[in-house]
Amino acid sequence: MEELIGTLAGIFTTVAAVPQIFKAWKTKKVDDVSPKMFLVLTLGVALWTVYGILKADTPIIITNGISTILNSTMLFLILKFRNT
Amino acid sequence: MEELIGTLAGIFTTVAAVPQIFKAWKTKKVDDVSPKMFLVLTLGVALWTVYGILKADTPIIITNGISTILNSTMLFLILKFRNT
Repeated sequence: MEELIGTLAGIFTTVAAVPQIFKAWKTKKVDDVSPKMFLVLTLGVALWTVYGILKADTPIIITNGISTILNSTMLFLILKFRNT
Repeated sequence: MEELIGTLAGIFTTVAAVPQIFKAWKTKKVDDVSPKMFLVLTLGVALWTVYGILKADTPIIITNGISTILNSTMLFLILKFRNT
């Protein structure tokens, strides 16, 4: 049971940024989105990835590695579309 | 070293929603923010909290418990300020 809940939790938190990325890409509008949130989130999941590498913990590396890519993509879109 | 990186990662990912909450509260504008992102994120960290309870893992319970409160707060603000 625990493993199922942990896997679901990992999937949800990993892909959470996807709908925000689609919305930003479609509307080209990001003024209401906080760049600080995505900066802090990207740093956090990048640190979790380093933590996973140090612990040789594959699930932590994979989920947070994907999150690092997704959240830094959103950070890029915020910088690209700001004040458009 | 690993514990320090894990603690920093936990703090960053836990408080990441705070700047977005402040921005939404100040501007009362949330149209560019994806409600689906915060729904999926809230479900994810809530599931991580359940996972922590089942594993009796205090750090996981605390960090994800706080994240659940913060992300559901942002979800509430999105519903409250949408189309204002």
